[in-house]
Amino acid sequence: MRNIVILGASGSIGRQALEAVRLNGDKFRIVGLSVNTDVGFLIRAAKEFGVKKVAVSDDASRKAAETALKAEGLKLVSVSELCRTEEADTVLSAVVGIAGLRPALEVLRAGKILALANKEAMITGGRFLKRAEKEYGGKIMPVDSEHSAVMQCLSQSSKCVKNIILTASGGAFRDLTAEELKNVTPEKALLHPVWKMGKKVTVDSATLMNKGLEVIEAMYLFDISLDKIKVLQHRESIIHSLVEYDDGTMLAALSRPDMRIPIQLALSYPERYDVGAGGLDLASVGCLNFGAIDCEKFPCLKIALDAAGKGEAAIIALNAADEVAVKAFIDGKIAFTDISEVVGNTVERFSDMNVGCEEDVFNIDALASQYTISNLIREVR
Amino acid sequence: MRNIVILGASGSIGRQALEAVRLNGDKFRIVGLSVNTDVGFLIRAAKEFGVKKVAVSDDASRKAAETALKAEGLKLVSVSELCRTEEADTVLSAVVGIAGLRPALEVLRAGKILALANKEAMITGGRFLKRAEKEYGGKIMPVDSEHSAVMQCLSQSSKCVKNIILTASGGAFRDLTAEELKNVTPEKALLHPVWKMGKKVTVDSATLMNKGLEVIEAMYLFDISLDKIKVLQHRESIIHSLVEYDDGTMLAALSRPDMRIPIQLALSYPERYDVGAGGLDLASVGCLNFGAIDCEKFPCLKIALDAAGKGEAAIIALNAADEVAVKAFIDGKIAFTDISEVVGNTVERFSDMNVGCEEDVFNIDALASQYTISNLIREVR
Repeated sequence: MRNIVILGASGSIGRQALEAVRLNGDKFRIVGLSVNTDVGFLIRAAKEFGVKKVAVSDDASRKAAETALKAEGLKLVSVSELCRTEEADTVLSAVVGIAGLRPALEVLRAGKILALANKEAMITGGRFLKRAEKEYGGKIMPVDSEHSAVMQCLSQSSKCVKNIILTASGGAFRDLTAEELKNVTPEKALLHPVWKMGKKVTVDSATLMNKGLEVIEAMYLFDISLDKIKVLQHRESIIHSLVEYDDGTMLAALSRPDMRIPIQLALSYPERYDVGAGGLDLASVGCLNFGAIDCEKFPCLKIALDAAGKGEAAIIALNAADEVAVKAFIDGKIAFTDISEVVGNTVERFSDMNVGCEEDVFNIDALASQYTISNLIREVR
Repeated sequence: MRNIVILGASGSIGRQALEAVRLNGDKFRIVGLSVNTDVGFLIRAAKEFGVKKVAVSDDASRKAAETALKAEGLKLVSVSELCRTEEADTVLSAVVGIAGLRPALEVLRAGKILALANKEAMITGGRFLKRAEKEYGGKIMPVDSEHSAVMQCLSQSSKCVKNIILTASGGAFRDLTAEELKNVTPEKALLHPVWKMGKKVTVDSATLMNKGLEVIEAMYLFDISLDKIKVLQHRESIIHSLVEYDDGTMLAALSRPDMRIPIQLALSYPERYDVGAGGLDLASVGCLNFGAIDCEKFPCLKIALDAAGKGEAAIIALNAADEVAVKAFIDGKIAFTDISEVVGNTVERFSDMNVGCEEDVFNIDALASQYTISNLIREVR
């Protein structure tokens, strides 16, 4: 029986994690839940899963909900306290954005398993998370399908690794020309050909920024140098990633593209339970396709890789600028093809800053966000 | 530095093993070599690799070569003694046929690592080999690309395994109709579309008997029930096999189809060295194809699976009959489509026999061979 806290329970990943627990109730017990603002969801989920300890991270929502939560017999605690819940052995962080970095650090410093869906935490604070993992005896388990695949392949053999190869479906606009990309709408960007995910990551998939962020995540997570991480286009998203070894062998993890599989595995590893995703019948699939990524058409990937080469400040700026730019695109304020330009400018501006301590991460993030917003306002005027 | 004995050094697998040693001379040292009859090759290889201890398994060849070997300063020993060579930690058995069973048992009973390319040993004596492995603390390392892939995918605990999926290129005649199969020649059967291998296994690939034998090998090797081993057609032979887990995930091992990779891995595991096979560029490959196997067109696979369900005597008879039938086909005495009928008859005849001890294996093998030969003579008359 694994005792689990879920941070960000009402989002796409959080809801799918609850589904896994519903299906394998004898394997998992939920001992804590948090949401950002959706208190109604929180109360329903707490009732269904018999959870007493809850947190609401948004200040206004928390204050408004205090009485209602008390009336339901729920104990309202801070996110920080939830991360350190004594009964919990595993905390799934499905929080969105850099807001997840502090909770992630707290989980690891409590020596617990951190099932990390919140890739921004790893991207912006990878060095600090890995250090906390080592110092306090916790463990980071990736939830992203790509990193879950790499983790599984490496667990068979982490010796003699030549390259890590992340696969990319290519996102919503993989078949468009550079010209057609200029006029795509947010509605179309939000239609991912394979995966059902949140808005930000779906747009990031369409720009391929998501793949760049995943490369950075892999760099920290698996402690491997940037030049050993490759990206391969694979339309069907069935091979989730590969590890290439010195002898020319690759190990790969495959499944139907269903996030419930890597989410559950991060909670159950090394055990595995049926999660209702169904088996993969390759004879019926018939064909798996691969190709090179077109970095000219999707400049965000190259911008991300360049930032990764420049260092931590550039990466933090990249992450901050992308969040602002994607929001502006979804709100109809900039074109799809503007995203890369906006992000590129911010990265350029902050690359030389120094990241000495954790607080520097948050400072650079705030500065880079403000800078990107000001730039956008100037342009829109 | 691994100290290695190679049994059957002059065959296809033996020569490729020597290539691997040539390329990674600082990792491997050869301390013993055997051949069946090719004494010239033995002398050249012993000189090149500085080997002193050699064996010749064929009686007539050994007697004829005694003086020549002595003149070269080589120490001629029995195959049995070679298997127990004190300096050796690993013995690669690339012997052909059931003749490899006794040496394989001796290697394991000496507590050494047995790199097993000789699948007939595992098929006919799997129970005894696995028992010897357990009792004497040795280890069986598969050399077949499929089993090497499965071994790599299985975690040490081999927990939550749902199925093992062996891939099959489909052999030389995968695109022929049932009608066209009746008139194929041995020359065409020996042209494998992907792999370069010995004659017997190449014909077995064309009938798909080889895949049946591999299923039986996997059953013993990985101690898994027959119903959990599936076969998947995969034309490119790039995914060498897969392991499916309870959560719907599959792990797979991929590489260029080059036998030097699994041969070397069986000798170096868990280390891996470049073996000169080149990397696998999936973007250039473009597409991997999968399909169901047509058991109607290739009845040998079904005959093998049925024999596996019937038990050890049926399997030993299958192996013996197939050796006789394939030889008769290569010699132009029977048609390609006769192979399954010949083998099926022998399996039927010997299924009910009991295998109590190792000697029963050799007895049933001898009886089944004789029976198959007599049947063929009767038919040819």
